[in-house]
Amino acid sequence: MLRSKTCGELRLSDANTTVTLAGWVQTTRDKGGVLWIDLRDRYGITQLLLEDGQTAPELFTTARSLGREFVVQATGTVIERKSKNPNIPTGEIELKVTALTVLNPAKLPPFLIDDDTDGGDDLRMKYRYLDLRRNPVRRNLELRHRMAQQTRIYMDGQGFIEVETPVLIKSTPEGARDFVVPSRMNPGEFYALPQSPQTFKQLLMVSGFDRYYQIVKCFRDEDLRADRQPEFTQIDCEMSFVEQEDVLNMFEGLVRHLFKSVKGIDLAEVPRMTYADAMKLYGSDKPDTRFDMKFVELKGTFDTVDLTSGKGFGVFDSAELVVGINAPGCAHYTRKQMDELTDWVKRPQIGAKGLIYVRYNEDGTLKSSVDKFYSEEDLQKWAVQFGAKPGDLMLIISGDSNKARKQLNELRLEMGNRLGLRDPNVFSTLWVLDFPLLEYGEEEARWFAMHHPFTSPKPEDIPLLESDLGAVRANAYDLVINGTEVGGGSIRIFNRDLQARMFSILGFSDEEAKSQFGFLMDAFEYGAPPHGGLAFGFDRLCSLFGGSDSIRDFIAFPKNNSGRDVMIDSPSEISDKQLDELKIATTVPAK
Amino acid sequence: MLRSKTCGELRLSDANTTVTLAGWVQTTRDKGGVLWIDLRDRYGITQLLLEDGQTAPELFTTARSLGREFVVQATGTVIERKSKNPNIPTGEIELKVTALTVLNPAKLPPFLIDDDTDGGDDLRMKYRYLDLRRNPVRRNLELRHRMAQQTRIYMDGQGFIEVETPVLIKSTPEGARDFVVPSRMNPGEFYALPQSPQTFKQLLMVSGFDRYYQIVKCFRDEDLRADRQPEFTQIDCEMSFVEQEDVLNMFEGLVRHLFKSVKGIDLAEVPRMTYADAMKLYGSDKPDTRFDMKFVELKGTFDTVDLTSGKGFGVFDSAELVVGINAPGCAHYTRKQMDELTDWVKRPQIGAKGLIYVRYNEDGTLKSSVDKFYSEEDLQKWAVQFGAKPGDLMLIISGDSNKARKQLNELRLEMGNRLGLRDPNVFSTLWVLDFPLLEYGEEEARWFAMHHPFTSPKPEDIPLLESDLGAVRANAYDLVINGTEVGGGSIRIFNRDLQARMFSILGFSDEEAKSQFGFLMDAFEYGAPPHGGLAFGFDRLCSLFGGSDSIRDFIAFPKNNSGRDVMIDSPSEISDKQLDELKIATTVPAK
Repeated sequence: MLRSKTCGELRLSDANTTVTLAGWVQTTRDKGGVLWIDLRDRYGITQLLLEDGQTAPELFTTARSLGREFVVQATGTVIERKSKNPNIPTGEIELKVTALTVLNPAKLPPFLIDDDTDGGDDLRMKYRYLDLRRNPVRRNLELRHRMAQQTRIYMDGQGFIEVETPVLIKSTPEGARDFVVPSRMNPGEFYALPQSPQTFKQLLMVSGFDRYYQIVKCFRDEDLRADRQPEFTQIDCEMSFVEQEDVLNMFEGLVRHLFKSVKGIDLAEVPRMTYADAMKLYGSDKPDTRFDMKFVELKGTFDTVDLTSGKGFGVFDSAELVVGINAPGCAHYTRKQMDELTDWVKRPQIGAKGLIYVRYNEDGTLKSSVDKFYSEEDLQKWAVQFGAKPGDLMLIISGDSNKARKQLNELRLEMGNRLGLRDPNVFSTLWVLDFPLLEYGEEEARWFAMHHPFTSPKPEDIPLLESDLGAVRANAYDLVINGTEVGGGSIRIFNRDLQARMFSILGFSDEEAKSQFGFLMDAFEYGAPPHGGLAFGFDRLCSLFGGSDSIRDFIAFPKNNSGRDVMIDSPSEISDKQLDELKIATTVPAK
Repeated sequence: MLRSKTCGELRLSDANTTVTLAGWVQTTRDKGGVLWIDLRDRYGITQLLLEDGQTAPELFTTARSLGREFVVQATGTVIERKSKNPNIPTGEIELKVTALTVLNPAKLPPFLIDDDTDGGDDLRMKYRYLDLRRNPVRRNLELRHRMAQQTRIYMDGQGFIEVETPVLIKSTPEGARDFVVPSRMNPGEFYALPQSPQTFKQLLMVSGFDRYYQIVKCFRDEDLRADRQPEFTQIDCEMSFVEQEDVLNMFEGLVRHLFKSVKGIDLAEVPRMTYADAMKLYGSDKPDTRFDMKFVELKGTFDTVDLTSGKGFGVFDSAELVVGINAPGCAHYTRKQMDELTDWVKRPQIGAKGLIYVRYNEDGTLKSSVDKFYSEEDLQKWAVQFGAKPGDLMLIISGDSNKARKQLNELRLEMGNRLGLRDPNVFSTLWVLDFPLLEYGEEEARWFAMHHPFTSPKPEDIPLLESDLGAVRANAYDLVINGTEVGGGSIRIFNRDLQARMFSILGFSDEEAKSQFGFLMDAFEYGAPPHGGLAFGFDRLCSLFGGSDSIRDFIAFPKNNSGRDVMIDSPSEISDKQLDELKIATTVPAK
């Protein structure tokens, strides 16, 4: 080794020993004939010392030539520091240098390698290898490593076997768009990269593997919204001879283990809520339950007593749903603030037509933006419904049920932000259960699987497959943490006929179903056990644990929003020879 | 859970408890009013018992309807067996059935689900999910899982961080053929799948990660020789501030840990040999050192005293090299056997022109196929050179040095097979060191990197880059076990100028080098530490540990020699819509 110790391990007990360190020059200070160098590696920082009259002059010459990020090797004697630095573990000692070698010089980095850097996003992506030197970024990847380690410890302990499933598989039309790979040996044919190992893990259950997991790369060729990546990592799991309850318990156990082992947090039992309740109470299937502010209906679809109609306010009279939230302690909002909030919900991304408010003043009076139509007595009834107290502000949206709920969900999250109720270091978990099996795509005029085509309907709802497709509930479940879906899964269909029926509902011809998924349906005829499973979004889980909104910060070499790796400049054109060998041509007009 | 116990865990101490099992019907035996069912799962086999007069008649009806591989759930009481089966851990008990449910019936499998199956390769590949049910195949994948676990335990313990590197990267011309992925968002451009994470792991060293590893899928679009797979798995590692000796010690430690923890074998220290010696003594850079039979030269290039020329035998007189092996105890080979062996080396795959032999008879006389040219005294000198004893057989090949060595290597391995010296349960390891940096491609009339373009020349050989490219040795090393290269690596170049020189030697223009690897050369200018690493072929390592020649047996869902997954029927044609979106067309004439 070019070192005998790392830059993070020397202590006062090492005093008077001779050691060799290697690392990067973080800073140099040259003052009154004394020169200090902070030498950095992954493990820490150690101070090097050179003193006039004590250190050989040629070492001074070398040391004075060092710039930031030079890679050097230093040998010397560990001594006690005169002025100690209590902020770092090596702060009691320094290294009195007797030999100093430049292993590699460094150009001035294009941005500061420091916790707070002056580099913009684009520059840091282009020089990702330098950004990765910064402590916060490196710590994110160390966290990711610990998350993976602890996941494996838990899964191994529960008897799961990690099995690698193939990356070169087959393109299927259902779900998101596939990345494809032309096959040179089979001209005109393509592999696809997996969006998940779904069918393979089900086959492993048919094979009797009983408990499977894998931390695995998956791929989706989707238009990249902020913070989506074309390649992402899943913790993918499947179990045989289980019911929904077993899967929930197993993976609640995993999440609890991760919180305890990685963050030292004893997680409370994960509460459960049906999809229907989540939509009614939060307007979302992934509610942020770090704060309350549940939806309150003044007129609606769930047996709500109508407290709004017939008072001459046409907007509410014609609305399918009148629904609001009570923002605690916000009665002080000024007219200007209300106008700004109204504009916020009217932005195209939210799309509300307007925002009605009722201020519950500290003196007990009520003041609303619809005083023209509703008496103080009416508003009092609303306040009771909202459970509002003096000092609160009720915010009400109306219209089509689905749209109004979505809009109010956005407003609720925004109010949570404004009220500081969404602390990234507070964790609130939730199982959302009983998802609909199917959802109707108006545009395509057909039914789609809400999770995927392999999800089992609830046995008691199977008759509804013949009468009311929208009412069929699935044995499907999502794990939500802080308003983010971090995992989801289901009990699977394991019967050929039911699987065929499902494909038929989704608009597959018998032939299409057979050519795409015949192998799976065949497998169901050779002794398939009941099975179910779950997959966690590993990048997202890591970012949540790291208290960050950005999954990119937890991926070593992420791609930008155009799917480009700007560091290596990929994707790129390939040679005509490659195209010829693959028997493909691009149809892009020459530039 | 649909079971309270697995089929592998019940013991006599569980007698009189009521349990529920679930699994697959292995066999049923119906004899004299008693019916036994062997119920199988991943964990073992438990015998179920139904008895006339004791078991409800409707259970008999269900039990008699069961076929092989039916999935059933059985509840009952654990009782002591009358006739115990000492061959299985559950052999002391059986389950007296009180409830029996068919969870899923099964069609008759297309081949026997048994340790010895009657299914041919093709059938077993098509129904891979059934083949995976067989104990030997499942055990292979369990071995693989343990190998991965133990690898991680060792690497984690040595302070390595697992970092995931991207799968969608950039196509580069050097090395094997890339699989490519058209980018929809960047029309006309392609990603490539990595042949290894080489440049990324080097960048992680530049980032200061110090010790990196990953168990990672890699891809090569090569013509598939037997037992090559287009996607394969590597244990990929890199370390900073190291010299060759450090890397060898670290990974010798890994191999020793794996042998100990997975196979219970205390591995001896791994011997070391230079590439030059390996070629001289075995004619191969991956010699099988389970047996001796080293090459002996009678005339050659390595200061060998010429014992063959000038006796009128033109074949040897004109040969660059006359080299042989001594096959111990083979003097009894008949003329017929010798003819057959001669034919064997003359096959096109080996390509020898002929085979000369010298029989060292038990009575001390020598008899050769070139008695016409060489006296007994000549042959005696040869025998001394060979270290032959009475009863041995010397086998000699001559010709061009490289060809003769390759041919004799094949013959040596064949003789090892014939003499039973290549026991798959005996393990012999070897580091091969000091590989040439470059090899000349006659066809392309240029130099190629023997390992890859990032391998560092030995510092003392750097001057030879200007004078004698073929003589430059690399800081490169391979780990060989039983004649198979299971891992290889090198100390890397970490200096921009040397890397640029290397690309230039390999025929890259400055522009090509910059466009393909500019990011890496740039990185070397911002403080790159000395670093090196190694990658193990994980599939191969598993197959070696499993005592098998076939890596396919250690991959859950392998592809065949045409790169096809015959189970899912991939690759396959994709839709015109997909091609249009990707802005590509196939140039294969319509069928």
